[in-house]
Formats: sequence, structure tokens, C-alpha cells
Amino acid sequence: MASLGVAVIGTGFMGKCHAMAWSHVRTVFGGNTEIRLEALCDTNAEIIKQKAAEAGFVRAETDWRQLIDDSRIDIVSISTPNNLHREMAVAFLAAGKHVWCEKPMALTLDDAVAMTAAAASSKAKTLLGYNYIRNPAIEHARKIILDGKLGRIVHFRGQVDEDYQADENVPWTWRSRLATGGLGVLGDLTCHLVSFAHYLVGDIAQVCADIDTVHKMRSVPGSEEKRGVENEDIAHAMVRFDSDATGILMASRAAHGRKNMIRVEVHGTKGMITFDQERMNELQLYVADEPAATRGFKTILTGGLHPPYGMFTPAPGHQLGFNELKVIECKHFVDSIERDQEAYVNFAEGLKIEKIIHGIAASAASRSWLDVR
Amino acid sequence: MASLGVAVIGTGFMGKCHAMAWSHVRTVFGGNTEIRLEALCDTNAEIIKQKAAEAGFVRAETDWRQLIDDSRIDIVSISTPNNLHREMAVAFLAAGKHVWCEKPMALTLDDAVAMTAAAASSKAKTLLGYNYIRNPAIEHARKIILDGKLGRIVHFRGQVDEDYQADENVPWTWRSRLATGGLGVLGDLTCHLVSFAHYLVGDIAQVCADIDTVHKMRSVPGSEEKRGVENEDIAHAMVRFDSDATGILMASRAAHGRKNMIRVEVHGTKGMITFDQERMNELQLYVADEPAATRGFKTILTGGLHPPYGMFTPAPGHQLGFNELKVIECKHFVDSIERDQEAYVNFAEGLKIEKIIHGIAASAASRSWLDVR
Amino acid sequence: MASLGVAVIGTGFMGKCHAMAWSHVRTVFGGNTEIRLEALCDTNAEIIKQKAAEAGFVRAETDWRQLIDDSRIDIVSISTPNNLHREMAVAFLAAGKHVWCEKPMALTLDDAVAMTAAAASSKAKTLLGYNYIRNPAIEHARKIILDGKLGRIVHFRGQVDEDYQADENVPWTWRSRLATGGLGVLGDLTCHLVSFAHYLVGDIAQVCADIDTVHKMRSVPGSEEKRGVENEDIAHAMVRFDSDATGILMASRAAHGRKNMIRVEVHGTKGMITFDQERMNELQLYVADEPAATRGFKTILTGGLHPPYGMFTPAPGHQLGFNELKVIECKHFVDSIERDQEAYVNFAEGLKIEKIIHGIAASAASRSWLDVR
Amino acid sequence: MASLGVAVIGTGFMGKCHAMAWSHVRTVFGGNTEIRLEALCDTNAEIIKQKAAEAGFVRAETDWRQLIDDSRIDIVSISTPNNLHREMAVAFLAAGKHVWCEKPMALTLDDAVAMTAAAASSKAKTLLGYNYIRNPAIEHARKIILDGKLGRIVHFRGQVDEDYQADENVPWTWRSRLATGGLGVLGDLTCHLVSFAHYLVGDIAQVCADIDTVHKMRSVPGSEEKRGVENEDIAHAMVRFDSDATGILMASRAAHGRKNMIRVEVHGTKGMITFDQERMNELQLYVADEPAATRGFKTILTGGLHPPYGMFTPAPGHQLGFNELKVIECKHFVDSIERDQEAYVNFAEGLKIEKIIHGIAASAASRSWLDVR
Repeated sequence: MASLGVAVIGTGFMGKCHAMAWSHVRTVFGGNTEIRLEALCDTNAEIIKQKAAEAGFVRAETDWRQLIDDSRIDIVSISTPNNLHREMAVAFLAAGKHVWCEKPMALTLDDAVAMTAAAASSKAKTLLGYNYIRNPAIEHARKIILDGKLGRIVHFRGQVDEDYQADENVPWTWRSRLATGGLGVLGDLTCHLVSFAHYLVGDIAQVCADIDTVHKMRSVPGSEEKRGVENEDIAHAMVRFDSDATGILMASRAAHGRKNMIRVEVHGTKGMITFDQERMNELQLYVADEPAATRGFKTILTGGLHPPYGMFTPAPGHQLGFNELKVIECKHFVDSIERDQEAYVNFAEGLKIEKIIHGIAASAASRSWLDVR
Repeated sequence: MASLGVAVIGTGFMGKCHAMAWSHVRTVFGGNTEIRLEALCDTNAEIIKQKAAEAGFVRAETDWRQLIDDSRIDIVSISTPNNLHREMAVAFLAAGKHVWCEKPMALTLDDAVAMTAAAASSKAKTLLGYNYIRNPAIEHARKIILDGKLGRIVHFRGQVDEDYQADENVPWTWRSRLATGGLGVLGDLTCHLVSFAHYLVGDIAQVCADIDTVHKMRSVPGSEEKRGVENEDIAHAMVRFDSDATGILMASRAAHGRKNMIRVEVHGTKGMITFDQERMNELQLYVADEPAATRGFKTILTGGLHPPYGMFTPAPGHQLGFNELKVIECKHFVDSIERDQEAYVNFAEGLKIEKIIHGIAASAASRSWLDVR
Repeated sequence: MASLGVAVIGTGFMGKCHAMAWSHVRTVFGGNTEIRLEALCDTNAEIIKQKAAEAGFVRAETDWRQLIDDSRIDIVSISTPNNLHREMAVAFLAAGKHVWCEKPMALTLDDAVAMTAAAASSKAKTLLGYNYIRNPAIEHARKIILDGKLGRIVHFRGQVDEDYQADENVPWTWRSRLATGGLGVLGDLTCHLVSFAHYLVGDIAQVCADIDTVHKMRSVPGSEEKRGVENEDIAHAMVRFDSDATGILMASRAAHGRKNMIRVEVHGTKGMITFDQERMNELQLYVADEPAATRGFKTILTGGLHPPYGMFTPAPGHQLGFNELKVIECKHFVDSIERDQEAYVNFAEGLKIEKIIHGIAASAASRSWLDVR
Repeated sequence: MASLGVAVIGTGFMGKCHAMAWSHVRTVFGGNTEIRLEALCDTNAEIIKQKAAEAGFVRAETDWRQLIDDSRIDIVSISTPNNLHREMAVAFLAAGKHVWCEKPMALTLDDAVAMTAAAASSKAKTLLGYNYIRNPAIEHARKIILDGKLGRIVHFRGQVDEDYQADENVPWTWRSRLATGGLGVLGDLTCHLVSFAHYLVGDIAQVCADIDTVHKMRSVPGSEEKRGVENEDIAHAMVRFDSDATGILMASRAAHGRKNMIRVEVHGTKGMITFDQERMNELQLYVADEPAATRGFKTILTGGLHPPYGMFTPAPGHQLGFNELKVIECKHFVDSIERDQEAYVNFAEGLKIEKIIHGIAASAASRSWLDVR
């Protein structure tokens, strides 16, 4: 029987999400491949043993380098701070281990390029954590688009908003500094939006952007000092796709009241699809070929007819949750490894997304259109 | 270290849901109690080995009676057809095993009474699968109500609708017959609504009801014969609570377009709460003590401030799914066992619900108000 | 050229609404019939002259009896307190004047019977102010139903809620007393719901009901006294239609946060239509004959394809308002007069509605099913 | 008694809307100023007499120049094709008549400049038809913003979409040509969005834009010929406000399914307001100073507490319609005339809007940021 050994590095928000996905994937999807939870890794020695036990991992590890040459490990989930992605990914790929890395891909574009090169030199597979596009609602939207039901796609709009930096009293941290935190909302949220655009419409070719930092100074905890925030709270860009379709990307991490809004609209010559992540089990579809008096946006609730929803429950409208998107993503990676096919979004595709979000920052600085291919 | 051995009987819709919950509960909630997946049981010998392996169970079993005296098993999940609940539950409780049984509790009221008696005679704990009330949104609603924010609760409205029997071409099955299938929509859906009413408002004292079967004859598969459907597609009841609050319960399994609508309204003298399961991560709250010009129903997205949401993800608005409600319910049962406290809805509370749904059927037959306590 | 002289009695909420409708109807709908605003009548001599001038009426009148034999007046709008409806309607009908009377029809069932008899003896036309069913969205819903798109109609649900009596500090008035105010929420709101049920599904044959008064005592203004409220805040009823379809009617005037919720659901064997007056320019339609993977409730925005919307504006989705429903109703009455056809809801049809709301009160008192035909 | 004589030029979509507003304004708002409907003007001699009679105008006119020196006329509503706005407005202003002109202000920026100069030289008042900002919901939003409830306004997003040019089979007309039709969606829809931005946030200083024509060739009716469409179907712009707030404007007249979507978001440092014209009686408000666990977007239904809603009906939640916004706008103009105060949006303010929409077209052509002040 096939068997895959897994290590997860990181035990924070996304680390736990990966651990849950790995422990869940075979229960949900079945199949004959055994998933062995070999190692959970975190620098915090005090908690890692307990966490590993809770999540069902065989072993707790505090030094990720110990995993590089561990032959029991086939796949590594990287859910650490972004500044560590490059070093880890390159090392594991060199050792032939498959790498599932959280987004954003890296701190800098150089890092992303290096990671992509490492992937190209390795027989191992790569995957980046663009979980939202794994939603059965989005897969269904994509199918409708590819089937031509919307005609030619002419326009895309996307907005992604959260409010975790909306309060002026949120303290300054190392994340507020470019050198240590990298991009702001672009790296955290906009990259997701680009994944939607690429998956549903195609590659973005050009951008023209503007960015802003709402709260320019923040207090340093435990002192009276205030320091400057170096990365952006708000970013938006006009885009042109390879297909010459137009589009708009909008993002804010300072949008009061928004918790996980990712709203996308795909405009075609024969219809429109819209989607809102805050109601992630619904798809809105309008097609122009119905009798005019009864046309309208249709709210489609996902169910067994929208794979792989049915693996979670046969009952439509019962709803999947955020974490289950990660399980689908996990299954996608397992499949790509077993079938020796590239996963999507792999590092090469992820590099395109990085070029776009860094291109947006550059365009905002130069106040001009830039080619981002 | 504490350790609990689990058996799950049934591998259908809810059987898989239980298996997923058991394999997930410690990964999500942590803690020191080991959960051992001892046995997965189903009469279908062809599939059970594979299913057990996939879901991570040590052992596959085709005869549930083999589990009764198995000392490795502490808890049994019963997810079989309803007509088996009584025999299984009584046997496991007599053997001292904790029983987590799917709803509806049993085929007949007599069965439910017998199961409750068995629970009363046993030291083991019981729990019925009323998963929807485990939603952090509902827990939050309950807290708001108990805190008095809505004033005195004067009225409750609930509707629960699906459409799995809406199509006239759905075939006749053994479920269409009272003797083998028991109640119709009352047993399948209305009982959930009662769980909301009891959890949010209090016990129902009296009912006056009407029922209807939309498609009275259905085709027997593989023949030209049509047979009568003996149980109800639609049921509704006016109710009076112990508190003298009024209410309405509505249900249909023939409601085209509804996949899992469970809409509830709690009317108080100082405000109102509403909820819709088809948007299960949202709560609507109206409180009358705000400035009049800016009053309105507030859409609260659940997050870390609404326990135990935060155990799944720290990010608000990211949304839980249906299966995760089952994980919360599972944790609730583990806690009740570890703390030696009654779970909710245990068999004694569940019997109250059974009395109400059977009371509704009786009231519809007699066309009169009935006391259901 | 044809010409119709109009008198409006009452200058409150609905009086102004009628005055606006009469001054607007020809501007909106065109046609060759001149509408002459002859008299505006109110007992308040201090304001009536000013109001008549503002609304464009030729004459201000304080004594409605002066209008009975006024040959310039062809039609009378009665928008006075309900206890005056009978005397006025009977007098005007006897004088051959067409009567457009606000709902509820009368204070008592006896009054409604007398008014209906007066209408039967007169050549004049009658109309009751059930304006909500004049909505193009509702006309469209009715057309879809009559065209058979929903199959056989098997179930109806309606709720109508406002919150004008939700606050316990609302004072006691003459309306709180049965003898002077008549029915409570049944007369004010439930009657509208019945108009929807009759228009969309057909006549109601039987009811079984419950009612409640949330705030049983209210303060008399300017005193320390509290007096009992004699009519109901909450009412709900199970119903059976002539067609044997089942249904539920729900109403509350003490529903915090609800301003004009009138939510209806029509369940058919092939689809469902739902509507919410708080979003009165939208209709929700689900039909079961579409490909399963793209089925869903469709939000139809009314426009020129939904007559008579186009008379107000050619632009779909621009939305009509509440007052414009009254203009449509007004046009309907003018047409019925010009074509010598009965209007809907005329007094004979309105009497059916009165029998139902009084039947609901009687059923709640007797706690039993009642025939209301 | 004060008295104002009115002429309306044009009997199409907006012409009828103006006629309805003028016939309705005193009925709704009362007051002592008599509104005399003096003349309805249209070049179509066949229909104008009938239309004038229907709408209650004293006189039908086919030559608008006959109105210039008519002393009975104080105010002129211009609802003609845009290419006539300049000549008419200049002539009427020179004759001392108040001018209420539909948007867009003019065909070209030169025309708008000339009209503004004419207004500056006249004692008469001017108003442009930006009716949407007259919505009580928008006035309430503005009040909340000006009261500081949202803190500092940092970001604005607006989208306005319709689908009247979405179908590729819509024929080519004179409107498709720049010289005769002027701007496309910018002149028709985007200008409204700018009126929202200016009213709620303040003046826009800079724009950077992109535009696209979805259907570049359209069929000439009655021939086999196809001609080019010279103006844009889609337009979007990044903007900077005078206050340095950022923003996005989006518009499409080829957005399938959208009938009158005007969605705006105002992001502040302490909260957010959103609004959607397709649900024009609702305002969404989020304020950050409420207890965190019960925060959420509040749906405020407009009512008597949101002036001047109460002039139409005392009942909250009953909803105004599109045409009633025009009545409010009409009342605003009457007030500005009576009080000798500038109306908003007068020609000087309207010129700012024209500079922005023409600036957007210019920016799209030059692919660069432009100052539009």
C-alpha cells in the first residue's frame, strides 16, 4: 500500500490548519494511500510535544533542519513566518521532499524566484496555500466559464477586505516593517484575489495601482514610542489580462466590519457570476439566455453536484467550512504527487502571483502602468 | 493519560460524519484524552474493511453485538437506521458504554421511553445528534437571551425545509411506510427545530398541529405499482411554551429549492434574534435600546469571540461547516463523560422532543390542542 | 371626455396616500379620463383648508355628509378610523357613489356584512385598500402560478410583522379597547396576509388559531393609571384552503426590528416563489425543471416586463415605492368603474377576508378548527 | 401666495419623471407655494397634446424657443437628448429662468463650461438631476459621516452597473458615436457615482483610469452594415480625493443582470457605511465602538427618522421608489429658489463632475494620472 509521511512546520493559525487537513484528508476522501503524521515542528519547545500529541503526530521537533534528511518524511507543510519560506523550501526540495507552502510565497520577489528555481530542479511537487479557489462553488464557477455559458469573459472585479489593522490602537510589530514583514495587504490578501483572477479568467498582464497606509504611525508595545508602518493597508489596481479583458483588484486590511470578504465578479458577454467568501457556499449566476421576464441572479447552494462537496456530506446546502477547503487542497496535493502531475498553484504559477503583487507595489510607487509578466 | 475507545456503527451520511468527528476532535480541541478509533461497524462486509482503514479505525466489524462486551470500547456512535436505535442503545447502556445516538431518537415513542429508562439505569452518558444547536452562533444567541438582552421572550418561530421529497418521481421505499420508516418530516427535520426551541426558549408544553402528504402515491422501483406514502411531507404546529410564550413550528421535506433551511426567530420584549442555517455563520440581532435612527438588524459573523469557534481558526468570518458542528458536539460528549455530567440533549431531554413530534402527529390526527409534557 | 370627481375623507397616513394616488394616477397612466379632485374632508377645520390646497383639491370640507348628495363627486376614498367605515360606505353607496375604503373593512363582522349588502344593492363599485397585492412583483408571481410553472400549489406560508407595539411604554389608547379599536394585529396586518393568500393560492376554508397580547397593561397618558389591552399583539393560524392546500399565517405588531415585513412563500409541486415586502421590488423564484447543478432561487428585479411597472419608469431595477402601489390600485379602481367590472378586492371579496380574521379570533378563543367560509 | 410656473421639455424616460415630480411635489411636501404646470414641450406634435393633458399641463408646445420669453414660466426642466442641454440652458438662464437639467450636464466639457458661465451670469438657480443622493438613506449616511461616527474617511469604493448594452445584438444608434452621443457609460452612469463620492467624501482631485468597449461593432438597423461603437461600455478609475483619501470608481453598461446597481462603500477609521441602490431603502452601518462580540453591519431601514421620508409616509420600512427621489430633488430646487440659495448639484458643482468623467476618459487615453480639479 502506498504511504506518505508528513511533517508540518509551524503551529499557529495555518500550522494548525495544515495539521487538521493532514489528519482529515483520508477520512474524508478515502483511497488507499496511508497518510503518516510523522513530525510536528515548532521552535517553542514548551508546547510542541503537547501539540504533536494532540494532533496525532508521531514526533515533536524543534529544529526543522532535522527533517531535511529524514527518510520517513515525504511531504513538508511550511506554515512559518514568511521570511523562512525560502530557506526551508529550497532545502526540502533539494532533499527531494514535496513542499506545501503557505502564501504569500516569500518575503521578496528574489526569494520567490529562488524557490521556483529550486522547484524546477527537483522532482518533488510544490503547492502554495491558495485554498479559496478549492471551494466547490469556485470549481463550479470555473466549469461554467470554461463551458462558455458566460460567453467571452470581458471583465473581472475582486475585492478582499479584513479589518485586523483597522483599529488605530493595533500595536506596531515586526510585521509593520518592510524588511521583516514584507508587503502588507498585498502579501496577505491581494495575492488570494489574484489566485481567483488567474483561476477564473486567466493570467494578468499589466497593472496600474495605488496604495495607502491608513495608520502611518503605531505605538510600540511597552513604550511611549511610535514607529512608522512601512507597508500598505489599502491597495488597488486596474489590470489587463492576457486576453485583453479588463479588471479591478481591491484590498484593505483596515476595512471595519469585514472579516473575510472576498467578493469577485466575472462579467461575460452572455452572463455573470459573482461570489462572496463570507457566504462561501453560495454562487450567484446570471445567464442571459433565459426568458427575459424571469431572468435574475440565481443563488446556487453547493451540494453533491459540485465536486468534491459530496465527499464531506451527501446533503446539499449543509455547508462546508474554511478548514475543509484546506482538506480539498491537501487532497489535490496528494493526487498531484501520486499521479506525478503538477499541482495548482505550484511554485511556477505562484511566482506569477508574486510578480503581480510586487508589480502592484512598484506601479503605485511609479504611478504608472507596468507589465507584470 | 486518559483514553477513550470509540466504535461507530453505520457508514452512511451520519456514520461518516461521526467517524470524521471522532478522528478530528482532539486535533481541534487538544487536551490530554487520547481518542482511540477501535471499531467501525457495518453489515456490508464488502466495504467495511476499506472504510475502516480509510477512517483510521483499528478494526472493521460486521456484527454490532460483538462490540457490546468489548472492553476496549468506551463509547458507541449509533448512526444506523432508526429502527435499530432502541435495541442497540439499550444493549450498550446495559454494558456500561456511553451512547451517542443519531436523531430521531427512535421509531416509536415506546422505543424512546425504553431507551430513556435504559439510560436512567446506567452510569453511562447519552447524547442525541442535535448538532445544529452546537453552532457558535446559536451558543451566542443563547447567551444574549440568557443575559436578558432581548427582555422577556414572548414568541418563537421556526421553519425547517428541504426538498428531498419534492419531486413526484422520488420512488416509494420502506421509509414511506409508518411501521418501518416511522414519522416523516417530523422525525427527520421537525425534531431539530424543537431542539432549537428548547435550547433558546425553554420547554414546549402544548401543541396544535396539521400535517399533509404532498405526494400521496409513489412508484415502486422496478414495477408498475404505486403505493401509498404513510408519513407526512409537511407538518406545522402552533405551540405554547411552559413560560406561556407562543410559537410556531413549520417543516417540509417537499419544499423545492430548500436544501437545509432552518430559520428561527426569537422575539423578546426588548429585541429579536434570527438565524438561518443556510447562512450558518451569521446571527441577526436587533436590540431596541440603541438610538432610534440607527437601529437595525445587525449581521454578526461568528469568530473567536464566539466559543468554541476559535478552536477551529483564530480568523473571524472564515466560517465553520456543517461537519464541524459535529466535532463540537463530539467534544461536548467527551467533556460530559470526563466530568461525569449529563450531556445535552441526553436521552431524557430527547424523550421530551420525541413527545412533541409524536404529539404533533397526534394533534393533527385529533385536530385539537394536546399537552405534550 | 370622461371625467371622474373624487372626494377623499381623512388626512392621516392613508388619507394622504389616497390624495397622492388620485393626484398622480393620470400623470402616471395617462388615458382620457379626467380626474377631478373635488373635495378633501376632515373634521379638523383648522388644517383642512391648507391640506386641500396643498393636495390640489377644489374644496375643503369638514362634514362628510355634505358629500353624499354632491353631484360633482363620483368616487369617495374613505380613510377614516375604522369605526366610521360602515356608516360612510353605506351612505355613499346608497347615493350611487363608488367607494374605495381602507382596510380593515370594518370594526365588526356585522358591519362588514352590512357594507357588503349595501354594495350588492348599489350599481356603484367598491374597492378595499389591499395595496400590496398590486405590486408588479406579485402580479408576476400570480401569473407564474396561474401558468402552472410551480405545478400544483400545496402550501402557503405568510408572516407579517411590525414593531409599533413592541415597546412596553407605548401608551394605552382607544385603539387598545375592542369596542372602539376592534381587532388588533388581525385587523391591521393579518388581513393583508389573507389578501396575498387569496390572490396567489385561493380562498381559505378553515382556520385553527392562537393569539396573544404581549403587553397586557399599558399606561394611560397623563395619569398613573394602567389599563388592559383588549386586542391581540400576536396572532397565528393554521389554515386549509378550498383546494385542500395547507398554510400558515403569522402576524405580530410587537416584533422588534420589523417595519413592514410581509414574507410569503408559495410551495408548488414543481417550484417555489417567495417574496418579502421589505424588498418589494424583488421576487424569488425556484423552478425544478432546470439542470440540477445550476438550480437555485432566482432574484427577479421588477421592470418593464412586469406590468404596470413600465408606466412609472422604463428602467428596470429602479424600484417602485409603497405609495406607487396605491397609484396602481387607484388605476385598477378607475378601470373597474370605466369598464363596469368588479374591482378586486371588492366588498364581497373583502367580507371573505373579514370572516377569516374574525374566524381566527374566534378559533383562538375556542381553541378549535373553524370553518370560515 | 407664492406661485411658480413650470415647463418641462422632453417626454421620454426623464421627461415623464420630471412631470410626475412637478405634479407631485406640493401634494407630498405641502407648503404655500403654488406649482403651476404651464407647458409640456416635445417636438413630436402628434403626442404632445395628449401627454400634456394627461400630466395636467396647461399647454402643449413643440418649439422650446417659445418658452424662453414666456413670463408665466419661472422654471424649466430640461430632459432632452444631451446635445441640446447647452443651447437650452444658456437661453433660459439668459432669460432669467431657473433651470433643472438632467445629467450628464452636456455633451462636451466645453458645453459644460459655457453652461456654468451662463449660470454665473444669471440670477436664476440651476440644478442637475443627481437624484440618487436625495435618498433619505444617503442623507442619513452623510449625517453619520459629518457627525464623525466613522472617524476620518480614508477610502471610497463605488460601482454602478446596468446591462442595457450587454447584449451583442443591441443595435448601433447615434448614441454610439462620440460626436452625437458623447461619452458612454461615463456620461450615463459614472457621473452618478461621482455625485455620491463628492456628497459623502468630498471633491476628487486626481484620477487614473482605464476604459473598454465590450462590443466594438454593432449592427445598423435595417441594413447588413456594422459600425463601430465609439464610446466606452466599461470604465474604472482609481481616484485621490482632496483630503488624500483613496478611492475606486467602477462602471459598466454591459454588466449582465445588473439593472440599477449603485454600490458604494465609505471606509472610515472608526466604521464603515455601505449602500446599494438596488435595495435603496436600506443602509448598512458598522461602527467599531460597540462590544466586540456583537459587532456587525446593521441594516437600517429608512423611515420617519430619516428626513424627508416622513413626508411620503409615516410608516418606516414601507419604502420609497426611484420616482420619489425625483420629488425630493424637486422640493430641494423649489426651496433653493424660494430661499435664494444655491441648490446642490448646481451647474458649478456639476462642472466638477464633468471634469472628472472627461478626465477619466483622458486618463484612459494617456494611461496616466491626471489632475481633474
